[in-house]
Amino acid sequence: MKDIGGLMVPTFDDVLAAHARVAPYIHRTPVLTSSFLNELTGAELFFKCENFQKAGAFKVRGACNAVFGLTDEMAAKGVATHSSGNHALSLSYAAGRRGIPCHVVMPRTAPQAKKDAVLGYGGQITECEPSTSSREAVFAEVQARTGAEFVHPYNDPRVIAGQGTCSRELLEQVDGLDAVIAPIGGGGMISGTCLTLSTLAPGVEVFAAEPLNADDAARSFRAGKIIADDAPETVADGLKVPLKDLTWHFVKAHVTDVLTATEDQIVEAMKLIWKRMKIVMEPSSAVPLASILANRDRFKGRRVGVIVTGGNVDLDRLPWMK
Amino acid sequence: MKDIGGLMVPTFDDVLAAHARVAPYIHRTPVLTSSFLNELTGAELFFKCENFQKAGAFKVRGACNAVFGLTDEMAAKGVATHSSGNHALSLSYAAGRRGIPCHVVMPRTAPQAKKDAVLGYGGQITECEPSTSSREAVFAEVQARTGAEFVHPYNDPRVIAGQGTCSRELLEQVDGLDAVIAPIGGGGMISGTCLTLSTLAPGVEVFAAEPLNADDAARSFRAGKIIADDAPETVADGLKVPLKDLTWHFVKAHVTDVLTATEDQIVEAMKLIWKRMKIVMEPSSAVPLASILANRDRFKGRRVGVIVTGGNVDLDRLPWMK
Repeated sequence: MKDIGGLMVPTFDDVLAAHARVAPYIHRTPVLTSSFLNELTGAELFFKCENFQKAGAFKVRGACNAVFGLTDEMAAKGVATHSSGNHALSLSYAAGRRGIPCHVVMPRTAPQAKKDAVLGYGGQITECEPSTSSREAVFAEVQARTGAEFVHPYNDPRVIAGQGTCSRELLEQVDGLDAVIAPIGGGGMISGTCLTLSTLAPGVEVFAAEPLNADDAARSFRAGKIIADDAPETVADGLKVPLKDLTWHFVKAHVTDVLTATEDQIVEAMKLIWKRMKIVMEPSSAVPLASILANRDRFKGRRVGVIVTGGNVDLDRLPWMK
Repeated sequence: MKDIGGLMVPTFDDVLAAHARVAPYIHRTPVLTSSFLNELTGAELFFKCENFQKAGAFKVRGACNAVFGLTDEMAAKGVATHSSGNHALSLSYAAGRRGIPCHVVMPRTAPQAKKDAVLGYGGQITECEPSTSSREAVFAEVQARTGAEFVHPYNDPRVIAGQGTCSRELLEQVDGLDAVIAPIGGGGMISGTCLTLSTLAPGVEVFAAEPLNADDAARSFRAGKIIADDAPETVADGLKVPLKDLTWHFVKAHVTDVLTATEDQIVEAMKLIWKRMKIVMEPSSAVPLASILANRDRFKGRRVGVIVTGGNVDLDRLPWMK
């Protein structure tokens, strides 16, 4: 960790420490390929399948790093967070493994599948309205009442260091990558990816993929400063949250470009992956393939790592079933 | 191959020859586990994921063995078959790889996803009514017209030897199995499984799993002779076909038991696997888990290989979306 103008920024040593700390609690997820999708895109795609991860998403990496890095004294009061879904259940999973309480503030509109999963892992839910402002207000109340340690879903150096373990595995699993693409919401996965790649493989480009309907990261990237929307609407419900100072630090310094995809392109890419790769993943995880298909020239002939961020989808409400 | 009272029965040497022949055209599919499903069943389950196989199903093993074993002269006239789906597209895939024609007779009621896939692999479809009798009549006409080599979906020693390669891989991937369970329709996969296990691991039990709505194999097993139904109705559309003499030879000699599951149990097991393992597989492939859940005492505390036979499902018509 280093202090950059008051911002506590994780270093690659923190990623290494995180990897050793979380290894007993996470999967080393497989990398899958599809000859059909390679032909369709003209690229060689390597899908890092965090949909197979514990708790169904990459977020368990950062959550476990935060939870298992606490002193016993801090851990005793539990942890707390606000999240649109996967961080909530990942933190609940991590807290459960350590045997401490986990308090979660979730939008009342979050998919029932995610609420059930949080409860299933032993998390305690307090609902808020589906806006960033309401979420933060309700959370302040919960934290004041419990004294639990706040683990932010992404703007937290412990969380970013944890997410950085994903692309460390990817580099061990695939040789000669030209680029890595991951979805961007708050930017935790992208920041961890930047952190690891800029150290281990600085020649590999990092692309962030975002729904056009929630393109605050793309607009921030072009404007050179954080632009945040309150409550954008997209099928990729994991990507509605805005960048924050720590993730912006990584995005502005290391990301090659932020690409966007329309809602139709996202749903089509999701269905294509389900149909051809036979894996269940959530709409957010389809945004990278949708963005590749919408920007084929950027990826043609290149070896591209694609982070499939999670698989927690409500099977009763699939986006192509209207 | 050995002649047993006029029946040409494949031997384990045929499995070895098949494996060498098909290896360039198939995937060595992964084995996945789920701590949730282990806890739920009380067994240790090892899912052999043929849903990730080329053409989306194990049937490509047998189809490739048949196609690539033909002389150039025989191959020139192409191949032909009737199939409720996966064999059709597997044979189309195999024929396409060899560059020869593939003629397919399919029930007009087969899922559109499977028809599209056959056409996508270059197969030529002739439709029949959804009954065994109609299927066989239409097929005779097609074969007479084309002179193509008939590759039966399961009652063919080349096909059974090909399917036997699946459990050969499984034994290399998982140590100390107590049992293997696979769906049974016509019995091709079960026969190949019996052939391989009876040679390499004779102590491993083989269970066949069948929809209660199409339980001709279970009734045959108990009666000691083949009982066939015409056009049974089940969500597990790959399992409607009856046993034939060659598959019955293996079932009666090597299968420990034939277990059944109701339609509701099959759909519930399918959804459970999608939700927890994040893999897309078809209803037929859920019958083994449904049967394990309906017969927990038979599997408790045991290490069980579960063949996930295929992943070709119509995403617009999932069985839990009424």
